[in-house]
Amino acid sequence: MPEPSSTSPNAALLGRPGGRAGLDTPALVLDRAALDRNIAAMAAHARAAGVALRPHVKTHKSVAIARRQVAAGAIGVSCVTLGEAEIMVRAGIPGVHLTSPPVTAVKLARVAALARTPHHGLSVVVDHADTVAALSVALRDTPTPLAVLVDVDAGQGRTGCTVEAAPALARAVRSAPGLRFAGIQAYAGHLQHVPIRAERRERSLRLADRLRGLLRQLTADGLTAPIVSGGGTGTFDLDPEARVFTELQVGSYVFMDVEYLRALADGRNAPPFETALFVATAVVGVNQPAYLVTDAGLKSFATDGPKPEPARGAPPGSRYEFFGDEHGKLFVPAGVTRPALGAVIECVTPHCDPTVNLHDWYHVVDGDTLVELWPVDARGKR
Amino acid sequence: MPEPSSTSPNAALLGRPGGRAGLDTPALVLDRAALDRNIAAMAAHARAAGVALRPHVKTHKSVAIARRQVAAGAIGVSCVTLGEAEIMVRAGIPGVHLTSPPVTAVKLARVAALARTPHHGLSVVVDHADTVAALSVALRDTPTPLAVLVDVDAGQGRTGCTVEAAPALARAVRSAPGLRFAGIQAYAGHLQHVPIRAERRERSLRLADRLRGLLRQLTADGLTAPIVSGGGTGTFDLDPEARVFTELQVGSYVFMDVEYLRALADGRNAPPFETALFVATAVVGVNQPAYLVTDAGLKSFATDGPKPEPARGAPPGSRYEFFGDEHGKLFVPAGVTRPALGAVIECVTPHCDPTVNLHDWYHVVDGDTLVELWPVDARGKR
Repeated sequence: MPEPSSTSPNAALLGRPGGRAGLDTPALVLDRAALDRNIAAMAAHARAAGVALRPHVKTHKSVAIARRQVAAGAIGVSCVTLGEAEIMVRAGIPGVHLTSPPVTAVKLARVAALARTPHHGLSVVVDHADTVAALSVALRDTPTPLAVLVDVDAGQGRTGCTVEAAPALARAVRSAPGLRFAGIQAYAGHLQHVPIRAERRERSLRLADRLRGLLRQLTADGLTAPIVSGGGTGTFDLDPEARVFTELQVGSYVFMDVEYLRALADGRNAPPFETALFVATAVVGVNQPAYLVTDAGLKSFATDGPKPEPARGAPPGSRYEFFGDEHGKLFVPAGVTRPALGAVIECVTPHCDPTVNLHDWYHVVDGDTLVELWPVDARGKR
Repeated sequence: MPEPSSTSPNAALLGRPGGRAGLDTPALVLDRAALDRNIAAMAAHARAAGVALRPHVKTHKSVAIARRQVAAGAIGVSCVTLGEAEIMVRAGIPGVHLTSPPVTAVKLARVAALARTPHHGLSVVVDHADTVAALSVALRDTPTPLAVLVDVDAGQGRTGCTVEAAPALARAVRSAPGLRFAGIQAYAGHLQHVPIRAERRERSLRLADRLRGLLRQLTADGLTAPIVSGGGTGTFDLDPEARVFTELQVGSYVFMDVEYLRALADGRNAPPFETALFVATAVVGVNQPAYLVTDAGLKSFATDGPKPEPARGAPPGSRYEFFGDEHGKLFVPAGVTRPALGAVIECVTPHCDPTVNLHDWYHVVDGDTLVELWPVDARGKR
């Protein structure tokens, strides 16, 4: 059995003033007040826009954060892996929705088992007739039909059927024993980081037009779609305008990584959300004249996006570069005092979702103090 | 406490014929026979070359694999994080060596605690006088002095002091209470993937010349260096030629990822090691004409190197591309039958070390059968 990460080397720092700067590194650091402000800001936005929130767990994989989102009014959570959904259901989170179609025999059996455990609303998506048939077989002995959304490809070409194929699939769900047609999902992952806000808006509204057409056709077929689920942090304020989505699957707004800070910086004075997540890393090498060596590399930060951005504790103008699995290079502007050997600095995470997935614990801070340790419950869960 | 990954959804498949093709995906798959052949081939090479092996745990993070390496003759294991070293010592692995200098107060305290637990040989490196002083303070109450190697920068510029600074540091170690000078480490990480074998060889021999000069100077200072540790899979057959290293820190040879398969393909007919590690992924989307969608993305494969290469179960000539956190694109050559929805294929891992770090379990196979589940014990351990 893998060593359960039941102890963090940092547990001894809990409650000690100044503990944040003394964290054993590398460590994922979460500013609780900033997190709560982000959750409140998105909740207020959704209320004002008349749209529900089913925030995406793939970003944080944390029961504690899901609970805060639900406490602020979210109707449930979205999960991309079945392992995430299992953990959220077991923790009593309501309205757990699986955003990727379960396809293999093992996954279908796991969905059936989950549907038979006590839950407060569980839904999945399908994008192929074979999956509808297989899911129906897997669920034939389940007392309550499972809520199923038809996943429509919003143009990203990942999961989802075509808009044209959706009505037939919806009818197949309606007539499949064990299943209940609950609506439509259309996640425009490819639009979330479009850098020009006007272009993001136009393409989002065009997608909404197509979905409205689909909904009209479903109505003509005698099918109502109570749920239309989609949207992300990049289009959080554009999707409600289209008045087609009943709920938003926003995820990254809780943390605001380098990617989203850049994407949302266009078109308004300041993003409505703030950075809440950092990785603390120590200076472990000072023998090079051109840079310092830190102890967080590509096993501590996602490498698919931009670079981590040095923040707290790093001299202004510092720059980070990857330097292998366990190290980074920190370039400090000339003429500035360099952080000392052993000094801890914090970096804004490049792409938050896969960065979080590399860590076992959130080191939850209030100012300078480590106040809580939250596990990354669904880390690595498929 | 994070959910301990004490159960794999695949445990039910153990021993069942054909279980390999029915694995819940994504899953890390390890071919046990190929692993053992790689371990035996490196052990035979080292014996013939008259050099010891202290294979690097950063690659596999597995007690089970470390035990197989020691059983084949390795004198110990190398660890880049203290968390890896703690797990190996607790598991009773002998000769655990920490290849990165411990610097922060927390890390020094953890080293001291580890040095006080029962171990069969523990060593660390230092590359700065301040660390020698701090380590000596941390270890002042330890009954047996800790073996310390001076880490010399082999030209990569990551950790290590200059060759010129090494003698003074070695003398500092010798006179520091609680420490014992045990030798030199010089890891040429930057040479491991140099694509032209002749260039790799020439630069490796040049490094060896510099190290020989350093060793002569140490001898003149009355310091003997019983250990000279370094080398990797890319230079495994070049380093012994230089007759300066007493031991090799080879890591990736156990698995052979896409990176090393390419690096070692130059200069001989076939690499002396074979691919033993794969990631199994299922086809979960067949709605796109141009490609299939699989369920392994950048939370299942490292993204810092080349792309995963489709192998077992994929039509010859197939090509993989990343498609977000949890998905991939599989391009199949025209005119070839496409794998069906739900089919499981396997990909060679791009960069094995950070790929392994994304998984909880090795699914150990013998041919088509899942025969064991080995935990990735030190996954995420810092």
